[in-house]
Amino acid sequence: MKNQLYYGVAYYDEYMPYDRLAEDIKMMQDAGITVVRIAESTWSTHEPQNGVFNFSSVDRVLDAMHKAGIDVIVGTPTYAVPTWMVKEHPDVLAETKEGKGKYGARQIMDITNPTYLFYAERIIRKLISRVKDHPAVIGYQTDNETKHYGTVGPNVQLQFVKYMREKFGSLEEVNKKFGLDYWSNRINSWEDFPSVVGTINGSLGSEFAKFQRTLVTDFLAWQVSLVNEYKREDQFVTQNFDFEWRGYSYGVQPDVDHFEAAKPFDIAGVDIYHPSQDELTGAEISLGGDMARSLKQDNYLVLETQAQAFINWTPYPGQLRLQAFSHLASGANMVAYWHWHSIHNSFETYWKGLLSHDLKSNPTYEEAKTVGADFKKLSSKLVNLSKKNDVAMLISNEALTSLEWFPFHFTSEKNYNDVVRLMYNELYNMNIGCDFIHPKTKNLDQYRLIVVPALYSASDECLKRLNRFVEQGGHVVYTFKSGFTDEHVKVRTTTQPGMIDEVCGVTYSQFVEPKKVTLKDDPFNVGVEHNQVDTWMELLTPTTADVLAYYDHPHWGKYAAITQNQYGQGIATYIGCFISSKAMKAVLEQAVKKAELWGSDQDLSFPLITKSGKNDGDNTIRYYFNYSDTAVSFTYPYAHGTDLLSGDEWVRGDEVKLDRWGFCVLEESSL
Amino acid sequence: MKNQLYYGVAYYDEYMPYDRLAEDIKMMQDAGITVVRIAESTWSTHEPQNGVFNFSSVDRVLDAMHKAGIDVIVGTPTYAVPTWMVKEHPDVLAETKEGKGKYGARQIMDITNPTYLFYAERIIRKLISRVKDHPAVIGYQTDNETKHYGTVGPNVQLQFVKYMREKFGSLEEVNKKFGLDYWSNRINSWEDFPSVVGTINGSLGSEFAKFQRTLVTDFLAWQVSLVNEYKREDQFVTQNFDFEWRGYSYGVQPDVDHFEAAKPFDIAGVDIYHPSQDELTGAEISLGGDMARSLKQDNYLVLETQAQAFINWTPYPGQLRLQAFSHLASGANMVAYWHWHSIHNSFETYWKGLLSHDLKSNPTYEEAKTVGADFKKLSSKLVNLSKKNDVAMLISNEALTSLEWFPFHFTSEKNYNDVVRLMYNELYNMNIGCDFIHPKTKNLDQYRLIVVPALYSASDECLKRLNRFVEQGGHVVYTFKSGFTDEHVKVRTTTQPGMIDEVCGVTYSQFVEPKKVTLKDDPFNVGVEHNQVDTWMELLTPTTADVLAYYDHPHWGKYAAITQNQYGQGIATYIGCFISSKAMKAVLEQAVKKAELWGSDQDLSFPLITKSGKNDGDNTIRYYFNYSDTAVSFTYPYAHGTDLLSGDEWVRGDEVKLDRWGFCVLEESSL
Amino acid sequence: MKNQLYYGVAYYDEYMPYDRLAEDIKMMQDAGITVVRIAESTWSTHEPQNGVFNFSSVDRVLDAMHKAGIDVIVGTPTYAVPTWMVKEHPDVLAETKEGKGKYGARQIMDITNPTYLFYAERIIRKLISRVKDHPAVIGYQTDNETKHYGTVGPNVQLQFVKYMREKFGSLEEVNKKFGLDYWSNRINSWEDFPSVVGTINGSLGSEFAKFQRTLVTDFLAWQVSLVNEYKREDQFVTQNFDFEWRGYSYGVQPDVDHFEAAKPFDIAGVDIYHPSQDELTGAEISLGGDMARSLKQDNYLVLETQAQAFINWTPYPGQLRLQAFSHLASGANMVAYWHWHSIHNSFETYWKGLLSHDLKSNPTYEEAKTVGADFKKLSSKLVNLSKKNDVAMLISNEALTSLEWFPFHFTSEKNYNDVVRLMYNELYNMNIGCDFIHPKTKNLDQYRLIVVPALYSASDECLKRLNRFVEQGGHVVYTFKSGFTDEHVKVRTTTQPGMIDEVCGVTYSQFVEPKKVTLKDDPFNVGVEHNQVDTWMELLTPTTADVLAYYDHPHWGKYAAITQNQYGQGIATYIGCFISSKAMKAVLEQAVKKAELWGSDQDLSFPLITKSGKNDGDNTIRYYFNYSDTAVSFTYPYAHGTDLLSGDEWVRGDEVKLDRWGFCVLEESSL
Repeated sequence: MKNQLYYGVAYYDEYMPYDRLAEDIKMMQDAGITVVRIAESTWSTHEPQNGVFNFSSVDRVLDAMHKAGIDVIVGTPTYAVPTWMVKEHPDVLAETKEGKGKYGARQIMDITNPTYLFYAERIIRKLISRVKDHPAVIGYQTDNETKHYGTVGPNVQLQFVKYMREKFGSLEEVNKKFGLDYWSNRINSWEDFPSVVGTINGSLGSEFAKFQRTLVTDFLAWQVSLVNEYKREDQFVTQNFDFEWRGYSYGVQPDVDHFEAAKPFDIAGVDIYHPSQDELTGAEISLGGDMARSLKQDNYLVLETQAQAFINWTPYPGQLRLQAFSHLASGANMVAYWHWHSIHNSFETYWKGLLSHDLKSNPTYEEAKTVGADFKKLSSKLVNLSKKNDVAMLISNEALTSLEWFPFHFTSEKNYNDVVRLMYNELYNMNIGCDFIHPKTKNLDQYRLIVVPALYSASDECLKRLNRFVEQGGHVVYTFKSGFTDEHVKVRTTTQPGMIDEVCGVTYSQFVEPKKVTLKDDPFNVGVEHNQVDTWMELLTPTTADVLAYYDHPHWGKYAAITQNQYGQGIATYIGCFISSKAMKAVLEQAVKKAELWGSDQDLSFPLITKSGKNDGDNTIRYYFNYSDTAVSFTYPYAHGTDLLSGDEWVRGDEVKLDRWGFCVLEESSL
Repeated sequence: MKNQLYYGVAYYDEYMPYDRLAEDIKMMQDAGITVVRIAESTWSTHEPQNGVFNFSSVDRVLDAMHKAGIDVIVGTPTYAVPTWMVKEHPDVLAETKEGKGKYGARQIMDITNPTYLFYAERIIRKLISRVKDHPAVIGYQTDNETKHYGTVGPNVQLQFVKYMREKFGSLEEVNKKFGLDYWSNRINSWEDFPSVVGTINGSLGSEFAKFQRTLVTDFLAWQVSLVNEYKREDQFVTQNFDFEWRGYSYGVQPDVDHFEAAKPFDIAGVDIYHPSQDELTGAEISLGGDMARSLKQDNYLVLETQAQAFINWTPYPGQLRLQAFSHLASGANMVAYWHWHSIHNSFETYWKGLLSHDLKSNPTYEEAKTVGADFKKLSSKLVNLSKKNDVAMLISNEALTSLEWFPFHFTSEKNYNDVVRLMYNELYNMNIGCDFIHPKTKNLDQYRLIVVPALYSASDECLKRLNRFVEQGGHVVYTFKSGFTDEHVKVRTTTQPGMIDEVCGVTYSQFVEPKKVTLKDDPFNVGVEHNQVDTWMELLTPTTADVLAYYDHPHWGKYAAITQNQYGQGIATYIGCFISSKAMKAVLEQAVKKAELWGSDQDLSFPLITKSGKNDGDNTIRYYFNYSDTAVSFTYPYAHGTDLLSGDEWVRGDEVKLDRWGFCVLEESSL
Repeated sequence: MKNQLYYGVAYYDEYMPYDRLAEDIKMMQDAGITVVRIAESTWSTHEPQNGVFNFSSVDRVLDAMHKAGIDVIVGTPTYAVPTWMVKEHPDVLAETKEGKGKYGARQIMDITNPTYLFYAERIIRKLISRVKDHPAVIGYQTDNETKHYGTVGPNVQLQFVKYMREKFGSLEEVNKKFGLDYWSNRINSWEDFPSVVGTINGSLGSEFAKFQRTLVTDFLAWQVSLVNEYKREDQFVTQNFDFEWRGYSYGVQPDVDHFEAAKPFDIAGVDIYHPSQDELTGAEISLGGDMARSLKQDNYLVLETQAQAFINWTPYPGQLRLQAFSHLASGANMVAYWHWHSIHNSFETYWKGLLSHDLKSNPTYEEAKTVGADFKKLSSKLVNLSKKNDVAMLISNEALTSLEWFPFHFTSEKNYNDVVRLMYNELYNMNIGCDFIHPKTKNLDQYRLIVVPALYSASDECLKRLNRFVEQGGHVVYTFKSGFTDEHVKVRTTTQPGMIDEVCGVTYSQFVEPKKVTLKDDPFNVGVEHNQVDTWMELLTPTTADVLAYYDHPHWGKYAAITQNQYGQGIATYIGCFISSKAMKAVLEQAVKKAELWGSDQDLSFPLITKSGKNDGDNTIRYYFNYSDTAVSFTYPYAHGTDLLSGDEWVRGDEVKLDRWGFCVLEESSL
């Protein structure tokens, strides 16, 4: 992979309504496109019949791209199976909780099915061995947005039983750790192990979800090992990870352990989709970027993001540029659109590409041209942005899954990722750079503040590590539910918050669903509207902690809502209830200040977002983004900076203006 | 069929809780009932066991009715299968997307199943041969509200594959036209053709829906051919068509191509149900009537409409009369209620008939008596109302289905029929008489204005025909989405709106979901509340068109919302976004005026509705209806008219008064 | 069973995260716990493999409890089947309308399956024979919250067909009574009898529901007969009945005929769950208690109620005490919590017990201690409270089921139990003591007022009995829908309200869904907001009745809404529409007054609730409860009373104060 910024598109010659490869390449060149991603969606074209291969569209695209100086990432075409395979072997479709699978969509197969694996291996070897020596190919993507697709058929159940025996040794252990005596769920012989499809035991259900995530890890590692047999030294292998989807990229992916799954890859890749127009905030770009960068603690590829995308995402003038540079500011080395063109049939007809259906120029394409030109111009300055953050957020698939099993209350629409976003968004809004870490992350010492949303299920080891971190001078901000259950989603029998009560200096044994509860005396000055508590509240009694907020309520008023405790050299903050984003902002702000992390970047705040890092020349690069429909200005707080796009020079105290949806990139020379 | 108005009821002697045939007939005679519909719902009574027949209830009703001078329409009893058939042959139940069928409701069988067809043919031949010579029998209805019931089992799938091969010749064609390379959906061998049940390809899904509609056409044609073997010269065959159901008859029926299906019938029949009480507007009566009349361009039968119907439909005093004459005003020669009585068990217990459950008189029945008397009195004046409309609306099953596959947006509750109704209702409200035409209608020249809602899927031929219509002096009003895809629901690769861009003098390549968008400067003076744009908006750039409205928005304000273009001798109006009914009214009003169709009927408007036509004496009959709870009056604009009910004579300038929910019928003598 | 008040908990040694039996018993003793319920949930622990038994946890708990002086109720562990059984015999799972059952939850088996019955009988005999002589065991519970679990498999269908033949003799009868000619549903041979799973015939569906309820009755009677073979003379058998569940105990249980099912038991038991905190009203405690007491017309056991229960039910200080004594005031001799502790895994992790997850003391447990102490102190005074009520409410499973089949309208969220609660709550609020009776209750003479909510399906016999009751001087208050259909849910063909039209002096043949309808001139002075009519209204015409309220509506204003009729010596009130609770209160108040039942208790009203009865010493016990968050006081209206908790003496005219959520218990000595 060349040491440069890449500007790319997903491109499917196979989808084109008529032959326009030359025209497309011409338009790509005009737009400064330097890389295309191909092949991962079109198995049925490349293997029209069992064992009959036709890579002509791959060959012709590789040749034409190479001739045009555009690099290519080739994907293994395994996430969408051909019709002949399903007709010959219906069992390749995953059986899910809803029953037998039906052919039609992508991502419907059982990724553990040996028939599928046999055919997948064959097409991977055929394709990769064919293209590996092509000079256009800079790397590979395995599969696409891989998940386990809810596979729960008898074969998967059998593997799960073996996994359980391997992991726990005896059923006595399982029965005890999972509390299976309850409602006569006890299993007394391995042969009796019931299908988990109907289980009402959240410990068992969560363990099964964990097991399903290992299937994804194993499947991807297997694909990487196949591709690695062929790839050249200068080629990379990546995967296109995606996030919990709420109509856009929202938070932690439930079905994949990204940290584990990322290990065999050379570089992390992601897709990030986000609201647009008046709802464009940059938060998802930042969140997805921070997650991707954290996977391998390195730069990453945005393999997919929106050009025009769905109907309400047609960008306002300026937004496409703003988005592209926002990705770079989080550490991306590539920004690529899904797709080059808007397709004319089927599911994603309205998932519009850079070109509209008429395949001609349009305002978005015209704006992309300027992005391409600027990427080219600034590539050496902006590539490989390196970041060193003092703040990390600890996220956990296990906490997420267990809170699905034990939601805040029956009708609650909020879940784990709502807590993640409530905290992350406020860090983002105050321009705090942030890494993501996971329950097994060992070296916490590099951070000064760790934010921990709703860590409902966690091992003793993980919590002890956090306790030690505080003791040695670190700062942790926990929310409610943290520590409540162990790694088997068994509620701790010790004082709550489990394992962290002493460090947080607080205890509770009761909790309620708040109704008309506020924080007493509006301790954060957020106003009546934002001083509400909702969804969940714990009745906290401080032991050694200071109280940051009490509840205001006729009966619960004696209990604390938010506390802060000095423990050893550090400080632990505990938020016992769902609070508004304004209140969360206040709590995080004082935590950031106590951790001595408040700097001049924090004097700016959303919609004025700033991000920075070091470039290859070891100079600091500072991005300033205006995420609003109104021009803004700010006082430049650093010694000196050169605007890499305009060439303007700024010194401390200068007033810098940003257009609506505008931005600037400054380089701080190490004078 | 006699040359008279018919006033009827559906009557099931089989449902009666005790023998009261004589009493029922007496009460029918008192109410002026002249026709009953029988037999189509009671197969299990007529064939209690396989091959054992018992038509005694048919015989006795025919005899008694004949004696009483009441005519009878006999239905083929095939839409509800007997228990013995399902027990013997469970496969007669349609397999749908939801799986195997379950016995219980009506309309649950696979209308292509040969076992079902065998038994259906046998009962049809037995029944029709038995009754054909009975003097009471004036005609036949085949089946009832026939649809395809979502049948998708393996046999239907096999027929579909053959249909595809027959239609497209090669899979290469199918793959290309339907874009099956996408997501590896390509089919490379006919044997591999997957079940369409799970398809995510909207082109394939729409084609399957089209195929399913042919099953209905074929089934009905087969039934007609059977009945035709028996029917007397003076007898007719009809079918009871129904509409998209939203708790009442709403719009175009998705599952039947009414125009095709109606061909073999002698006369069209429909059922029309509509809100009542304060929500009675007459719009559904008019819409259903216009559709029914357009099927064979002739008078039609209202085979079912509500008497008291469901709980909220108990009519206010006067409404039953108003409704009955409204049907006549649209061209109906029969108005019949479902049912005569309110049934005492099962699904439609609260679908109340003319009689309540106590089978005695009630206010609604008393009002029916006056209708019956007036029908009798005015039959010769009002029968065979003949209409010649200058305005037509082009409706399309294909557009409807394809917009189900590609809705306006994910959470949109609006669909094709919402656009149909948005336009139709405003034509109705301004007293514009309207025919319905379809994509294959050839002779457009008889019209001066054609209204085209959301013609999302259409062939080049259809659009060229419309283009030629404009060029030669016609007026067309299109909405958004028209022309976007071809007949295979492939987005056109040419400039949008596809095929009609030149005629409309407008282009676009981008569209968005409007949020806080209005029409600039309220061009139609509809007020803030009604000046909103919702659901869908195209960013129009006029080429040769005049702009009737721009968007008001910080970024989209430079684009047009509604345009009008002179092309050849005619004018094409293009509405690029969902607008309010008030705005639609304004657009249509000016289109009507430009087409020089604005007359004195248009000086009246809802709730004062007027409809007219010529009677057998070639005199103009004018109906005036007051669809409101307040008395209204209007100035009579024509030379002379005789009120057929009161005998009053009116001349131009007279003030005519209508009671709340009142109406009058005037005959304009050709002096 | 000792003649004492019992204070209890459900206790599962098997669920404990570590051995703490001694500690638990110590804490129970501190809290005054006198009884525990065990064993009914843990079959898989007691029979870990087919035919292998292990009752060690039962034995050790019995021994330890006995040593501690705590009594034990042993449950038959049949409501949750072990994994081995389902693995060996998957058919034990009930097939329901949703298809084959899946293992996981409790209460998923077919209670008619002989394999299940074989294993159930074996474990019952093993367990009961083992424990019967243990001195700790005071009684038994059979199964738990038994219902039919929707079982509809082929075996159940076969039983149903036989039941139908047994009951109706011929299909001719069935076809006629159920109106099966409709939509060709007629059954002409028993072999053709279709599965009722898909039926759309509400008569057939309701009859099947009735049949399903007999399965529960039979199953419980069979269990009792088994237990009776072993039980000692001093031991009892009970069952834990529960109610329609709307997130709490709401109303009549649809799936069980409680009156029939209760017959073989020695004493009735129930579980009662209810909203808490600001939503605690005591209404469910009263309703559940009245139902339980009415089953055997005797005292009853509250086998389960909430301690902390679900998150929003953590009680305010004082509420746990208030609740406990409220149960006693309705006639309970036992109050027991579900569970002793909060469990650490699985479905009910947040169904919190008396102890929180930390198994230490907490505010709720501390309050329980005071309850236990007071129960002990007052046991002899408060046990066996005896009641004689003049008012009864007639409830009906058949009315409930038939209104599920024929709801008020398509989108109605209200059903039978909403009418029950609308009436019951107002009786409760005005401190009217109330029994429940059922359609077969013979001796109505003991009552002076019978309240009859929505008796939609009822036999002639039942209605004649009510007619006679009125004729002989009784008072009845009917609502809409009463008498409309017979016991086969066939609408009566006579004048409506069927069978009671003469007694009520009113008729109707039409009804509508009210929109903007009020009661004319606000006859009950409830104010605009509460004077609305909703959901359902009948257009009543009085024959002999007085009109209590007319509708206010342009067209329906001539019809009556509520009427009252003198018939014989009594009075029948008919409420023709859904009215507000305030209007219902007014109607019931005047009915109570006309029945001469208005007394000094009625001068108090919610939130000040009073209940009374006679104790074993034949002294009147009077409870006064303050169901509000504010202190209240009232003037004591009786001659003399001794506060059993404080010892205070009150005489007529004294001002008695109750704290927020406070109460007092007074004994009126028979001076």
